[in-house]
This record gives sequence, structure tokens and C-alpha cells, in this order.
Amino acid sequence: MSQEFEAEFVRWLSERLPQSKNLTLPMGDDGALLAPTATDINPAQIVATTDLLSDGIDFRLGEVDPQRIGRKALAVNLSDLAAMAARPLAVVMAIALPSQSSAGWLPAKYHSQSDRPQGLLELAKSLYEGMLPLAEQFNVPVAGGDTNLHDGPLVLSGTALGTVTREGPLTRSGGQPGDRLLVTGTVGGSLAAHQFDFTPRIEEALQLNAAYELHAGLDISDGLAIDAARLATSSGCGAAIDLDRLPISAAARLLENPVEHALADGEDFELLLAVPPQEAAHLLAEGPLGCGLTDIGELVSQTGLWQRSADGKLAPLAPTGWLHGQPHRGSR
Amino acid sequence: MSQEFEAEFVRWLSERLPQSKNLTLPMGDDGALLAPTATDINPAQIVATTDLLSDGIDFRLGEVDPQRIGRKALAVNLSDLAAMAARPLAVVMAIALPSQSSAGWLPAKYHSQSDRPQGLLELAKSLYEGMLPLAEQFNVPVAGGDTNLHDGPLVLSGTALGTVTREGPLTRSGGQPGDRLLVTGTVGGSLAAHQFDFTPRIEEALQLNAAYELHAGLDISDGLAIDAARLATSSGCGAAIDLDRLPISAAARLLENPVEHALADGEDFELLLAVPPQEAAHLLAEGPLGCGLTDIGELVSQTGLWQRSADGKLAPLAPTGWLHGQPHRGSR
Repeated sequence: MSQEFEAEFVRWLSERLPQSKNLTLPMGDDGALLAPTATDINPAQIVATTDLLSDGIDFRLGEVDPQRIGRKALAVNLSDLAAMAARPLAVVMAIALPSQSSAGWLPAKYHSQSDRPQGLLELAKSLYEGMLPLAEQFNVPVAGGDTNLHDGPLVLSGTALGTVTREGPLTRSGGQPGDRLLVTGTVGGSLAAHQFDFTPRIEEALQLNAAYELHAGLDISDGLAIDAARLATSSGCGAAIDLDRLPISAAARLLENPVEHALADGEDFELLLAVPPQEAAHLLAEGPLGCGLTDIGELVSQTGLWQRSADGKLAPLAPTGWLHGQPHRGSR
Repeated sequence: MSQEFEAEFVRWLSERLPQSKNLTLPMGDDGALLAPTATDINPAQIVATTDLLSDGIDFRLGEVDPQRIGRKALAVNLSDLAAMAARPLAVVMAIALPSQSSAGWLPAKYHSQSDRPQGLLELAKSLYEGMLPLAEQFNVPVAGGDTNLHDGPLVLSGTALGTVTREGPLTRSGGQPGDRLLVTGTVGGSLAAHQFDFTPRIEEALQLNAAYELHAGLDISDGLAIDAARLATSSGCGAAIDLDRLPISAAARLLENPVEHALADGEDFELLLAVPPQEAAHLLAEGPLGCGLTDIGELVSQTGLWQRSADGKLAPLAPTGWLHGQPHRGSR
């Protein structure tokens, strides 16, 4: 972007972004300096995840308040940390803003009316304003970043860093046949609002990982069906889902074929966990989570994705889910 | 991208990316797990930097071998670590590939000729193939990542993580009036080839930071003039450049006004260091760097950017440099 715009934006950011004891260098240097301070962390291990959102694929700038877009860009990255039961340390955010010359990528309300690109500056600020309440909620600084103009759609590329607690990270590969599959919250119908409003399951993941024996886990981003298949594959086994047990969201219940939406909509950002059966019974009896936790099936020795029919037999289940690069979720 | 494409690409990546003792989790989980192993690091501090490159701004996909684009995306992030004298720990790379439907963003040679997007897969592989030799040279794993299709130009968004050595990080803010300004290598003319071929000054930064007292430093990405002004501003002083001392590159010497190119071209990715005068004399006498090190001026108490004229007086110097979001460097 122009030097004037860049300077003004960095000045605004340095005033707007809260101080954090995890960040020990002021903005404007070549990088952010992070100093983990939590006392229960394993300092020898850092978790890094990255997730990139594009206009036309993950949101539509012309239709959505940019604060919700900024919030989502942060939330999807925090959800990846939750999937590993990592404690957020910092997020760095790179943003490519559509230059006004980009054909059609910049809605007219962000066009500048003078020689100063005030509209774009407001857009950049709004994206950050959307991130900050969520960042504050999880006490995670948004560190550094890179904000550019380019001749294309709005792109937000976040990288979240987290620290591993004493219990170690939650991975996808530790599941065993017989493990129960537990899912937090509800699934399906994320298109209506949940894709922008969801709360990453950071606290739930830390709480469960600290108090219970979890074999494996991930966050449901592309769809319960495909993500269950991925967890099973990473663990070298299969997954059998009891379709009549799915905790279907209120939004999905309003749609035709709620079960299909629950399996395939994606962007639920709920945790899917593989838990040894006795521990699962213990966990479900104690019910420690306010968001709820539902037993939806189990890992099985037959690789693949299955649904269990009424007579207990396994029938193939398609690993449906959202296909990256397909038309925007909003136009499905 | 399509699940088939994504699965094939992740499979290729898991086989192609080398093992690293810094990475303790196989690919395909929700995040990368990093475990610093160097013995001279300060485990309480992690450096994070991010840099996003877009087609049309930082390169032209239709004109440049994608291996050089991938290499550049990694190298610019490593250069930011060098600017802080941090030892590379890992890089995560998010890539947005232009879907074939994107108007004009995908050169015809990458269009698939069948129902499988083989062309795009080859493009994604080539980007990584360009990164890997550089990653190997600096022993830095390319961890995790996120590869998507979108309806826009090729975007590569890298985040580099580094560890701080015992001497602490090199920042922009520690310079003092009287410090000599030293620059590694040569500057100017990066457009010809250097923007793709440069070697990040990681080793030089670690070597100098370990053996000498450096007050401040950065990497010259936007132009010697504007970056010298930034270093001075961060340090609360001004910078005076002796224009007749600039180490002008051979490429810039072929152009009209080589001095202007040396000041303003940017993408030199050389280190600009502020060093106390006696230490600078010591350092220049010892000449420890193969790439050379040149005294080009000093920090002064008058804020602003200055050139020193023959009679020793200061005259204003424009903080020229590359403007992000301007037309591609290649079309200047």
C-alpha cells in the first residue's frame, strides 16, 4: 500500500492493539517477539497452524460486515489450536486488501472519494476491530502482521501459535478401535450464522485434555463425515457413526435433510474426540462442558467411514464435506 | 481445492518434505508441533514474522518459473528472521492458488486438460520444489501449511518462526546518534534477478550478533532510503547517508542513475546495521563477512533522513522506496 496509508495504519494498530505480556517488542519491527508466560506449558514445544480465507470462497465482502470477516479469520485459526489442545500464544495476520483498481473486488462503499484511500483504511481497521474482542476473550495477542494491497480479492492469512500443556498435544493419530467418538456442541447449518459467530473450543479442549484421557481429536472444519474419516485414517482405523445420535443444530433442523447438513456442512468448528470407552462413560456422566458433549459412534477396526444400521451392521457412509475451491458456501 | 487434489497434494508433500528434528508430528494434523533443539537458544522467546506475496505485485506467474516464486516466498520470510538475528525454527506457508475459472489468473500452461487438475497440482508442487533447497540450506522445516483454490491471483503467505540466541534479538530501536550505518553486500538493481536469487542474511546476522555489539538492524526490503529512515525513526534519531559510499550492485550500475536505484529499488534483502563507532571500526577492520560490509553513514541527532554533502553539511534526502500496492516491480 502507499507509504502514507501504511504508516497511518501501523500507527492506528499500535494504538489500538492492547499490550500483552506475551509480546515484548513494540509494533513496527521486523517481527514479533513472543515470550510464553503461562506456568503449565511445556516450553520445548510450540504448535503452529495456518488458515487462509479468501473473498468468494470463505465469505463475501460485499455481503458481510468486515468485522465478522476479521473475527472469522482469527477464530478459524484458534479452532486449529483447540484441535490440538494448545493454549494460544499469539496470532500473526497477513492481509491482502483489494486495491481500488481491482475489477469488482472492492465494494463501492470502500472506494476512496479523494486522493486518500480512507475507505480501504476503514476496511482494514474494521477487520481488526472484529478480531480484537475474540483475541481479548482468549487473551491472545494479534502480533505483527503484513497488510498489503493487491489486484485481487480480500485475503486474510492467519497463523496461530500455541503452547502445549503438560498433558501434551491432542493429535489425530492416537485413536484406537473401540474408542467412542464424542462431539461438542451441535453440528450442521453453519451457513446461516455459525460460520461467523462460533466460539473456538479452546477452553473445552484444554479442560478435557487436562482432566481426561483423550486418544485423538480434531476440529470439524470441512464436515463431520469427512473429518471423522480423516481422524480414523490418521489413527489407522475406521469410524462408525450412529446417524440417529447426531446433535443436529437448530439451524440445520430448519433445513431439508438435517442429517445431511449435520454430516456435510462443515464450519461447525466443534471438537471431535476419540476417547477410550470407560473414560468416555466417565466423561459423559460428569458432563463438564456447558456446550454439551454427545456420543455419536466409535472407531472400528475396518478402515473407512461407516454408518451403523438398526441391526448393528455397518454400511458405507460417504465422507461428505465442504470442498475447498468450490463456489462460496453462501451460494450453495 | 477438490478433496482428490488436496489428498494427492498432501500425500506428495508428506513424501517430499524432509524429516526434521524440529518437527515432531507428521503432516496432516491440525497444526505443526515444533521443538527447538539448538543449544544456544533462549527458549523463553520466539520470533514470528509474516510476509505475503501476490501475483501482479511481487511477481508475475505468467513470466517467472514458479520454483523461483516459491523460493522468494520463503526467502523474504527468512530475511525477516535475519533482520532480528533469529535462528530459523520453522516456516508455515499458506497458498491460495488461482482456480482455473479465475479470469486470467491461471496461465494456460497450468490448465488441466482432463477432469483432474493436474496442471494446478504441478504448479503447487513447483512452488514447494523452489522452497526446499533454500529450506535445506538453512535447516528450516517448512511445516504444515494451507493450500486452497480461490478466485483470484496466486498468493503465498509465509510465517517464519525463529528462536532468539543468547545475545538477544536485533531490533530496530536501539540505535544512537553517532552509530555507524553498515550495510552488507550491495544494493540496487534487484529487479533484474536478485529479487528471486538473493540469499537471506541469516548466517551473517547470527555471526555478527554473536561476536559484535550491534545497536539496531533491519533487512532492506522496500529500499535503502526508506528503510534507513525507518530504522532511524524507531531509534528516535535521524540517519545521514554518504551517497558516494553506497555499495552499488553491478546490476544497478548498468542502469541510469545507479545511486537512485541503490536508494530506492528495494528487495535488496541486505542487512542495515547501526553499530557504535569503535565497534564498527573494529568490525570493518576484521571484515568477517564474505559478502562484504560497507560503512554508508551514521545515525544523527536530527530526526529525518539526510545526505551528507562534500562540506560535511546535511541536506534532506527523500525516503524513497518501493510502494506496496503500486504496479508490479516488473512493469516499472
